[in-house]
Amino acid sequence: VMGWTSDLESAMQMLIKTFHKYSGKEGDKYTLNRGELKELLLEELGTYLGNSKDNEAVEKVMNDLDANNDGEVDFTEFIILMGALTVACNDFFLEFKTDDKPKGQSS
Amino acid sequence: VMGWTSDLESAMQMLIKTFHKYSGKEGDKYTLNRGELKELLLEELGTYLGNSKDNEAVEKVMNDLDANNDGEVDFTEFIILMGALTVACNDFFLEFKTDDKPKGQSS
Repeated sequence: VMGWTSDLESAMQMLIKTFHKYSGKEGDKYTLNRGELKELLLEELGTYLGNSKDNEAVEKVMNDLDANNDGEVDFTEFIILMGALTVACNDFFLEFKTDDKPKGQSS
Repeated sequence: VMGWTSDLESAMQMLIKTFHKYSGKEGDKYTLNRGELKELLLEELGTYLGNSKDNEAVEKVMNDLDANNDGEVDFTEFIILMGALTVACNDFFLEFKTDDKPKGQSS
């Protein structure tokens, strides 16, 4: 449905597609319940969350995300998580490049 | 530097890579000045911003984004824009699926 899409536009579409891949499984098609959120975190963000299988981490993320306390995470709450993770990832990325000399910077 | 990356993780990496592709061009390597922001908007978000060449649209985005008024857009301010655009895009996407019957939904 989109014209030619740039990297940035395909990144946005991936965020949307991934959310719906999990939110559509049970109950409200457009929100993530605890089970759907846990599956998303483990399958899609395993590398970042260190594959922590324990429920505590998921509980914590759920509570942090579930701003309106309805036990569900909607798309906006999900995007806030992704924004925070991306900023954290960028900070981590910058630590490798403290000085300005490009260190074999990937294209 | 990342292990196997999921769609979601590669979307996050794309957001980071695209920001640095433009922020690194002039002046402060880690912020977008007006020129860099304009180039990013036109080249990477043309489809969404309707290729509006006029400076007004870029000015407006710049002012909205430049929360701390230093004439530069840092990564966090950029992510806020991307979050807002992605939510708007998701709303637009949902309008096509008002009823729950999948309409030849792409995989």
